[in-house]
Amino acid sequence: MLRLNPPGFLRFGQAHTFDIAFGGGEANVSASLANFGMATDFVTRLPKNDLGEACLAYLRSHGVGTAKIIRGGSRIGIYFLENGAVQRGSKVIYDREGSSIAQIQKGMIDWEAVFADADWFHWTGITPAVSESLCGVCLEGIVKARQMGLTVSCDLNYRAKLWQWGKKAKEVMPELVRGCDIAVGNEEDADKVFGIKAPDTDVVAGRVEAEKFAAVAEGLKQAFPNLKLIGITLRGSISASHNTWSGILYDGAQLYRGAVFDITDIVDRVGGGDAFVGGLIYGLRTYGNDLQKALDFAIAASCLKHSVIGDFNLATVDEVEKIMAGETSGRVSR
Amino acid sequence: MLRLNPPGFLRFGQAHTFDIAFGGGEANVSASLANFGMATDFVTRLPKNDLGEACLAYLRSHGVGTAKIIRGGSRIGIYFLENGAVQRGSKVIYDREGSSIAQIQKGMIDWEAVFADADWFHWTGITPAVSESLCGVCLEGIVKARQMGLTVSCDLNYRAKLWQWGKKAKEVMPELVRGCDIAVGNEEDADKVFGIKAPDTDVVAGRVEAEKFAAVAEGLKQAFPNLKLIGITLRGSISASHNTWSGILYDGAQLYRGAVFDITDIVDRVGGGDAFVGGLIYGLRTYGNDLQKALDFAIAASCLKHSVIGDFNLATVDEVEKIMAGETSGRVSR
Amino acid sequence: MLRLNPPGFLRFGQAHTFDIAFGGGEANVSASLANFGMATDFVTRLPKNDLGEACLAYLRSHGVGTAKIIRGGSRIGIYFLENGAVQRGSKVIYDREGSSIAQIQKGMIDWEAVFADADWFHWTGITPAVSESLCGVCLEGIVKARQMGLTVSCDLNYRAKLWQWGKKAKEVMPELVRGCDIAVGNEEDADKVFGIKAPDTDVVAGRVEAEKFAAVAEGLKQAFPNLKLIGITLRGSISASHNTWSGILYDGAQLYRGAVFDITDIVDRVGGGDAFVGGLIYGLRTYGNDLQKALDFAIAASCLKHSVIGDFNLATVDEVEKIMAGETSGRVSR
Amino acid sequence: MLRLNPPGFLRFGQAHTFDIAFGGGEANVSASLANFGMATDFVTRLPKNDLGEACLAYLRSHGVGTAKIIRGGSRIGIYFLENGAVQRGSKVIYDREGSSIAQIQKGMIDWEAVFADADWFHWTGITPAVSESLCGVCLEGIVKARQMGLTVSCDLNYRAKLWQWGKKAKEVMPELVRGCDIAVGNEEDADKVFGIKAPDTDVVAGRVEAEKFAAVAEGLKQAFPNLKLIGITLRGSISASHNTWSGILYDGAQLYRGAVFDITDIVDRVGGGDAFVGGLIYGLRTYGNDLQKALDFAIAASCLKHSVIGDFNLATVDEVEKIMAGETSGRVSR
Amino acid sequence: MLRLNPPGFLRFGQAHTFDIAFGGGEANVSASLANFGMATDFVTRLPKNDLGEACLAYLRSHGVGTAKIIRGGSRIGIYFLENGAVQRGSKVIYDREGSSIAQIQKGMIDWEAVFADADWFHWTGITPAVSESLCGVCLEGIVKARQMGLTVSCDLNYRAKLWQWGKKAKEVMPELVRGCDIAVGNEEDADKVFGIKAPDTDVVAGRVEAEKFAAVAEGLKQAFPNLKLIGITLRGSISASHNTWSGILYDGAQLYRGAVFDITDIVDRVGGGDAFVGGLIYGLRTYGNDLQKALDFAIAASCLKHSVIGDFNLATVDEVEKIMAGETSGRVSR
Amino acid sequence: MLRLNPPGFLRFGQAHTFDIAFGGGEANVSASLANFGMATDFVTRLPKNDLGEACLAYLRSHGVGTAKIIRGGSRIGIYFLENGAVQRGSKVIYDREGSSIAQIQKGMIDWEAVFADADWFHWTGITPAVSESLCGVCLEGIVKARQMGLTVSCDLNYRAKLWQWGKKAKEVMPELVRGCDIAVGNEEDADKVFGIKAPDTDVVAGRVEAEKFAAVAEGLKQAFPNLKLIGITLRGSISASHNTWSGILYDGAQLYRGAVFDITDIVDRVGGGDAFVGGLIYGLRTYGNDLQKALDFAIAASCLKHSVIGDFNLATVDEVEKIMAGETSGRVSR
Repeated sequence: MLRLNPPGFLRFGQAHTFDIAFGGGEANVSASLANFGMATDFVTRLPKNDLGEACLAYLRSHGVGTAKIIRGGSRIGIYFLENGAVQRGSKVIYDREGSSIAQIQKGMIDWEAVFADADWFHWTGITPAVSESLCGVCLEGIVKARQMGLTVSCDLNYRAKLWQWGKKAKEVMPELVRGCDIAVGNEEDADKVFGIKAPDTDVVAGRVEAEKFAAVAEGLKQAFPNLKLIGITLRGSISASHNTWSGILYDGAQLYRGAVFDITDIVDRVGGGDAFVGGLIYGLRTYGNDLQKALDFAIAASCLKHSVIGDFNLATVDEVEKIMAGETSGRVSR
Repeated sequence: MLRLNPPGFLRFGQAHTFDIAFGGGEANVSASLANFGMATDFVTRLPKNDLGEACLAYLRSHGVGTAKIIRGGSRIGIYFLENGAVQRGSKVIYDREGSSIAQIQKGMIDWEAVFADADWFHWTGITPAVSESLCGVCLEGIVKARQMGLTVSCDLNYRAKLWQWGKKAKEVMPELVRGCDIAVGNEEDADKVFGIKAPDTDVVAGRVEAEKFAAVAEGLKQAFPNLKLIGITLRGSISASHNTWSGILYDGAQLYRGAVFDITDIVDRVGGGDAFVGGLIYGLRTYGNDLQKALDFAIAASCLKHSVIGDFNLATVDEVEKIMAGETSGRVSR
Repeated sequence: MLRLNPPGFLRFGQAHTFDIAFGGGEANVSASLANFGMATDFVTRLPKNDLGEACLAYLRSHGVGTAKIIRGGSRIGIYFLENGAVQRGSKVIYDREGSSIAQIQKGMIDWEAVFADADWFHWTGITPAVSESLCGVCLEGIVKARQMGLTVSCDLNYRAKLWQWGKKAKEVMPELVRGCDIAVGNEEDADKVFGIKAPDTDVVAGRVEAEKFAAVAEGLKQAFPNLKLIGITLRGSISASHNTWSGILYDGAQLYRGAVFDITDIVDRVGGGDAFVGGLIYGLRTYGNDLQKALDFAIAASCLKHSVIGDFNLATVDEVEKIMAGETSGRVSR
Repeated sequence: MLRLNPPGFLRFGQAHTFDIAFGGGEANVSASLANFGMATDFVTRLPKNDLGEACLAYLRSHGVGTAKIIRGGSRIGIYFLENGAVQRGSKVIYDREGSSIAQIQKGMIDWEAVFADADWFHWTGITPAVSESLCGVCLEGIVKARQMGLTVSCDLNYRAKLWQWGKKAKEVMPELVRGCDIAVGNEEDADKVFGIKAPDTDVVAGRVEAEKFAAVAEGLKQAFPNLKLIGITLRGSISASHNTWSGILYDGAQLYRGAVFDITDIVDRVGGGDAFVGGLIYGLRTYGNDLQKALDFAIAASCLKHSVIGDFNLATVDEVEKIMAGETSGRVSR
Repeated sequence: MLRLNPPGFLRFGQAHTFDIAFGGGEANVSASLANFGMATDFVTRLPKNDLGEACLAYLRSHGVGTAKIIRGGSRIGIYFLENGAVQRGSKVIYDREGSSIAQIQKGMIDWEAVFADADWFHWTGITPAVSESLCGVCLEGIVKARQMGLTVSCDLNYRAKLWQWGKKAKEVMPELVRGCDIAVGNEEDADKVFGIKAPDTDVVAGRVEAEKFAAVAEGLKQAFPNLKLIGITLRGSISASHNTWSGILYDGAQLYRGAVFDITDIVDRVGGGDAFVGGLIYGLRTYGNDLQKALDFAIAASCLKHSVIGDFNLATVDEVEKIMAGETSGRVSR
Repeated sequence: MLRLNPPGFLRFGQAHTFDIAFGGGEANVSASLANFGMATDFVTRLPKNDLGEACLAYLRSHGVGTAKIIRGGSRIGIYFLENGAVQRGSKVIYDREGSSIAQIQKGMIDWEAVFADADWFHWTGITPAVSESLCGVCLEGIVKARQMGLTVSCDLNYRAKLWQWGKKAKEVMPELVRGCDIAVGNEEDADKVFGIKAPDTDVVAGRVEAEKFAAVAEGLKQAFPNLKLIGITLRGSISASHNTWSGILYDGAQLYRGAVFDITDIVDRVGGGDAFVGGLIYGLRTYGNDLQKALDFAIAASCLKHSVIGDFNLATVDEVEKIMAGETSGRVSR
């Protein structure tokens, strides 16, 4: 997706220029992994025009593999982002109807070839929400990935404004999630998609209580016994400029809790959840069975994302590990 | 339409920001007239979101009336513009499928109310090209305008990449043009839409010969006897940075020729034809029967447009009249 | 007034560009009302040059009526604004001597025509401070507005650096305020203009105590029994980047208190008081006798202003009502 | 003077930022000399505020001495500049009424101290045009300079829009010019100020004929026998983007002609005349009696000015000498 | 190399920002080929820091392979570029002493691995000029490339300011060129490096006469019989804004001449020669033995480069072929 | 040094432009003093190219004397700065190898002439770290300054990444510091350079305890009895966006403590220590023996630096004195 946002804190009505970036759930995770040095490919469909080329160039520049992207259709999806501040929240206008990826048809992607050298497939709940045919292609990929023995992870990522194509998330997502090994979400996703609620939470007020969210993780595990690992991101929204941030991980047996970060001067919170997933996948592949360390990496990585403009998390492994080690003082590195 | 273009001479693949403007055939003519001090309203359909609001604000800032614009649909049409230089031509990517105006339906615009205080209706050949329903609404407007006694003018404005909705320009345009009093176009429009050709012209080489184009004007008159006035713009394309520019006017009896301007350092040629129409309508309403003066105003106005960034011609009446008087030396006014 | 400010946090001596906006007390209130969807006209005098035109276009783009603005004089007033941060306060350089509005003369504005369709007239204490003749025109307007039955409101807005034309605020303002129904100010205005002090307040330290300011409201009521409603804005200045913000309303009988907002990452605080007035007028006209709700709207609206660049408050009614409902978490709206 | 101009080719009504520079006749000459390595001081009056400081910093950065500038008054003069292109000329809005320099009074400048170490005094016809008191101060300077034996030069620089203070150029300038050794101007200055005309010239059409302008130089010499040297700049205005440029020098005996430069892609022509004067003073002081070389240096220097943004000519002596040597091919220097 | 240049036409002393790009002879050729869709790798040495990473990302974004780039050393070479206009030429400041590539040592690049899948090796005369060790590494590459049967091409690219390491171009280049199949240069390269002169040429004046340059091509062939193909670029420098541009190709038997392009509004001429080489290599590989077509492609491609900002030529094959077909009118493509 | 930094919060890999400034330890102190109105000269060596000229212009614009700067060598040192936010610290890449100042040789600076009119010499620990020859020149200066009776002050300024020329700080600095009257540093400098540690401090956590640092001051006094005054800056790093800031002063007898400032929205912390030194030197020279006031000035001045972009502290004496007086509320000054 092409991301267009007025510079700094300008509102849509004040903008005379848009800053250009590209992003979107799966692309963001792919970029995180590439940035941490892992080989990764982003699979999507882009139009054959200069905007499609620009998107490819952007992905390549961030080290994301683009060889498996197919071309066709008439337009690239766009999202317009207005950056919020203090009490004024950020605003997103989606303009993805009729995009090349929304108009994809089953069979267009050769999943067997796509997965030939792969061992992991990640998708997000935004994808099946966009169009019926894309939902079908997503399921196609999940099924093939399982067949070929890949680990399958998903980010529930509920977006109420999408899901306009006929079916609702709660009707469709269960089948998709049943094909997954790992699911990540927040309390809103679990509630809105599966009706699983955290008791008594008051996220708006900024209090983040990991214990309460354990119930969400457990609820997801009960609903989807196939899930070997469930991650929950915990965002406390004090204002558009100040959030708390943490996460938990649940493997069906043990609940892992991470540090809570106080993010006081948010630069760009879009992509924070994707940065968590990117960090988690990196952590799981790097630290093996040390789930605590994988969680800590995921939280630290996504904490740093809030200081980076754009959808992509550009924090390096070194920088994430510094945060994990408690060096959050932001001293000048020279 | 939202116009997004990389700043200066950057190519699409190099852009990190887009400059924002709004434009489009009829809007550009409306803005020209507003800029010359004439009351004018732009009629279209815009989505109910912040981009729709931004478009309204932009039109209002240029003095264009917006009270007759209806709201609804899901997106604003976009066109991406890459500015050319020397041998490299400018490039346009249209992204207007599914736009609010493309999805307009007959009956949505209350043409009677729209025309209540009006005495002139202008439309361009881009409008019926966008979608079948929009084509219908355009015809609706033309018919009602004639009924209510307005002068109806059109710019043929052939765009090959549009006309994707089933019928072609040559099938549709004749009926629409038969409802008009005035038509403006260039030799390519006449050829592509009605098969009327100028003999032996070599526009690319920059030679502009008014005589030859008289045949085009006459051909149009014969095909559409309803046309009281036919204008032809004459662009000689030496390079993306250097054009010659002129026009002719034909009232069925006499052919009026204008000065040929040498535009050596083009700043932005998009909207040049619309500026000609805007100037012509202003001229016809201001100078009464002095068709030569109306033509001269139209050419001088649109000549100046080439030095103005954006689709809208911001030349003032004073500035146009200076050019008409031969003051093209570009001296500092202080 | 033309507002010129170095971008971001650059100091005057570092600026190589100025960001351009237009603003000023009454214009800001007008823009607030237009933004909330109310018909409004701004009355002023602007020079007949391109800067005057640019100001008109800016006002029009924000929906402010400009038909009653007169043209003449030699220059538009300018104010230069340097944006502060943390301990470094913002800095304003006024350059309005000899401006078209300062040189206005009695009789130039046809107040009867201006007020023909109006039911409300708002002015600020900055206006009579600029020049003797402008002070006279302001009084002219107040008198005519009362005659014609309009509600008259004022913002005391004391600016020490103005009032250079001979008389001081305390000599002039009483007569003007005696023509008003509603007055808004802060503790400094009341003190400097009328010698009415709040007991024991320490605003600098950031503690805002509504009770103490009740005395100011009461003092104003006693001095000006004509005032049916008195509003006081309460700003606690912790630093240039962090303020607390609230307000009270007093109708002579009851004191209404509003929520106190903690504004931690101020984007632009200029125009905060005008946004309060704009919100108050909107609230009073919308919520009828529910003064508490009107006050809450005023505070919430002006709280949001601090996150918006420029003098004008671009918060929508929806956004203000969300804040009134306690949704200050700044979550992304998508 | 503060110079504010919309970036690139934006018109005043399109600008959202102004580029900042400082300039003005005498300052420009001073900067030219500083840039060529000559010690120079600019004498003016600036307000005691951050804009005054910014002007000082700007002058210092270009090597212009600022120790003799006095401070006081309320505002810095401003000029707004819109950059023209092709047929659309550049536009200047002066906003210098009430500026610190306009309000200067006789006696404020200690001319004796100012000239203590100086041997040259240059002034322009803009200065006496601004206000009566400034005209008086200018004369004060000329008289004192002559007394102390300095060479006095002037640029006639006629600006019709100035001269609003009561007397006209033709009433005032003769006395001032009678105190000079050297005068520079163009055919318009000579005509408008002294009624000395060039026969049959058609500058607009771009034809520059040095011979015809010899008459102007001779006319000036006859009117002011005190002038030892008269320079005339010859600008042929083909369009705002394309000028021809040359000059002549006349010492009462011989007429020196320079090369004619074809300036096809003008970047910024403001200050071109001042660059000629700066180059001439440098040339006269450097090449002694070789008037041809001094003229050639002046023309080459001011030719280069047209490729430099801002009022100041930043061409170096090396660069000017290359042009004098005929190296106008604009090859990359690496 | 990191390329830093003041935006637009600002001079070094006026810049408050630098535009960032990356470039350099071989990189530019590589980018041309990638842009035309050919697989290509750039071989160099970059420091292990964020600037090295940024260079890699830039190359990747343009499709250039980076897998063979080695990392190490302390700094990336920089060149500062000031964009000229009209009579003022562009200016380059090299800052490449001590760069990672300058400090490379023989053996650091595993040429055998680098050439494993390759069939073409291109180098430029800038490389051996930078440092003695880099010159050695370049020779190492040429020798290995010949051994492994690659086609070897070079661009003579004489830069007088380089060659500071002890030996001069004329001492070193012959050995390097003797290892080549194809050489490209201009008349200055041939003269300065090998003492081969074109008779009577006056390039500065803009006259380009292919016949005269045939002698240069023949001279090179006689000096280096190993050269199967010799290309000469013909630049006529009328001003920094206006050049003519063409080229010739000589295979020892026949001289091929190309069209002469008039480039009137140069956007960025840096990299023009590299774009010629990139086009020539593409043409030779695509059109087989049709040397005329290869030359035409090379000239058209490099003509278009002059309208593209940055060192890299971003013209597509389609765009180049349009120019070859004579479509140089720069019409809008929509 | 040339300072190049991506605008706003962009990371190195995202930057398409660099903001340009100049700075470095001693230059920053010099600029502080000039800004406070004291005559000051910066002594360094700059290359004879346009970047050297730009540095001179920048210094001059800030009022720093440049007459004692010598020219030569091949390049200006560069440092690249990435601005951090919240948990992500700022990052500096030094690129100063082979710079003109690094390649200076003893005898190049005529210290006797430099110090002719001076009474104070300040240097920082960065200077001897850069190269052996520069270390020698620095010692040369210190010795001559003492001989000529100047006060000598130093900032210990330990930079681990420098000191690559053979000797380490602990081997070299003692001799240099023995030539000083005043030394300023932080706890890290004292520890890393002289092994003098503060007991039990936990600066990262943001707690700043002046008492503990008294031990550091005393340790320095014991090690260097020549030091008449020792200043310690106390920075508490809560995050990259939020620091506490204070300082102490020790004259061998009494310990002076200053206020602790809470800097919540840091704009640019680079140069904070230099701003402290600049403030201290100003304070010592202005307030005579009132060491408390000198310290308070130093802390307040450097507190304000954190709100100013660039290395140079642009706070005025008035602004600093306001902070000293407790006015830290950041109210708008108008």
